[in-house]
Amino acid sequence: MTTWRMTPAEQAQMAMMLEVAAFPKPGNVDRCHDFHSTRLEHFLASIILVRPSLENASGPGARVGAVIYDAVARTNVHSGGNTHFGAFLLLIPLVMGGDIHGAINVTRRTTVDDALNFYRAFGMTQVRVLTSDRLDVNDPSALESIVRQQMTLYDIMAHSAVNDMVAREWINGFKRVRTGADLLKKNGSGRDAIVLTFLDLLSDEPDTFIVKKHGAEIAEATMKNAREVRNGTRDLTLFDKDCIDAGINPGSTADILIGSLYVALE
Amino acid sequence: MTTWRMTPAEQAQMAMMLEVAAFPKPGNVDRCHDFHSTRLEHFLASIILVRPSLENASGPGARVGAVIYDAVARTNVHSGGNTHFGAFLLLIPLVMGGDIHGAINVTRRTTVDDALNFYRAFGMTQVRVLTSDRLDVNDPSALESIVRQQMTLYDIMAHSAVNDMVAREWINGFKRVRTGADLLKKNGSGRDAIVLTFLDLLSDEPDTFIVKKHGAEIAEATMKNAREVRNGTRDLTLFDKDCIDAGINPGSTADILIGSLYVALE
Repeated sequence: MTTWRMTPAEQAQMAMMLEVAAFPKPGNVDRCHDFHSTRLEHFLASIILVRPSLENASGPGARVGAVIYDAVARTNVHSGGNTHFGAFLLLIPLVMGGDIHGAINVTRRTTVDDALNFYRAFGMTQVRVLTSDRLDVNDPSALESIVRQQMTLYDIMAHSAVNDMVAREWINGFKRVRTGADLLKKNGSGRDAIVLTFLDLLSDEPDTFIVKKHGAEIAEATMKNAREVRNGTRDLTLFDKDCIDAGINPGSTADILIGSLYVALE
Repeated sequence: MTTWRMTPAEQAQMAMMLEVAAFPKPGNVDRCHDFHSTRLEHFLASIILVRPSLENASGPGARVGAVIYDAVARTNVHSGGNTHFGAFLLLIPLVMGGDIHGAINVTRRTTVDDALNFYRAFGMTQVRVLTSDRLDVNDPSALESIVRQQMTLYDIMAHSAVNDMVAREWINGFKRVRTGADLLKKNGSGRDAIVLTFLDLLSDEPDTFIVKKHGAEIAEATMKNAREVRNGTRDLTLFDKDCIDAGINPGSTADILIGSLYVALE
């Protein structure tokens, strides 16, 4: 069946599946690691359950904030907590827009309503992403503030970009997603290329999820260690173990990688 | 969200996902094993790609043979070969019928057309299942023979039941699927209950996939070894390794387990 093509929703599911199955991805849930409260099965369940949201995203009249809300609601039903919040923020514009060019258009055309739906979705999760002093999702006045200032979802992302590499993708035209897609091609094929690309991405920018959880110093050290693995001066398995033991999980880099896999699958 | 319910299609996908993620399942692809040409990713890809077929199955006017054909066509696109043929033969009646009682009705009401679509689906796969001297799927006259004898899909399964434990489920009212569902409840919860149930199922009936590939003697020995693991006189990890080394994979027992997981998830 050489004429067979994946739908955009399937392509997004495949990207999430290939990311979580690849191993070892230092510090993250993968085929060989679970976290205490979040297991491989939780990631796979979310990948299955989000499908209708992704199908809605590729249909007519989809609104990015509403689709994000729908995706989080559908995947927030198991006990594993949020598994793909950051990934959805990248995949949903990509599915809606069809490709990176389209995704950029989607992000530029967001509304205040998209921002409100995003905050409602965010309120359902306990994920460490995009919080800022001015727009704390736990603060009910945040929603009033968005309306008063007429902030779109793009404005929210611009506001969060300095501290969050996923939000930054919305502002810089999915730059690291594109870098990752190029790296995936350069690094060969299959599971090994995915692991090498993860290490490459981790090597040249501090993971903002690590920054939020452990501070900039640990994030810089993790970046340096990843670079040493790529240079052959540090053992991958030991690096992985050190990350797990210290609770250092480069979650934002994994989100970027999922976006890159989506693009590379085209 | 306590009111949340999975759709039947999602329930079937979850059953397949939980089966392949559970480990160690001696001799089979699982979270910790790949086969040379079939990897975990192929199983997960099939689970993602089959969704529209399962949704069609739960819709009005679905025909079991056509849905089986659709499911095999959708999942036959990757290089990992067929991953879930036997599982589809159990899940599709279960999704169509809603539960075991409904599934029995679905199997009893099949037509000659269902039989023809089943054979067309089977012809796309290289799976060792349901062949018999009289109705070899590689023999074009098999289709003519089905029409001439006005055999329904139920008749085909009745014909194959003696040599195939998946076909047998159609005839005996999904007896082993029900046994497995009861065992899953008895064996506790989560991944360990799935592994224990797999061993229990393997312990008390020879796996017909092993019989076809290696003969009855090896299938009996595998059954005895599984029983010893359950009795605590054989090491699970070693049993797993022995199966893998000898290419002994209890694929039909895995199919039954998927059916049982579907029922247990209700």
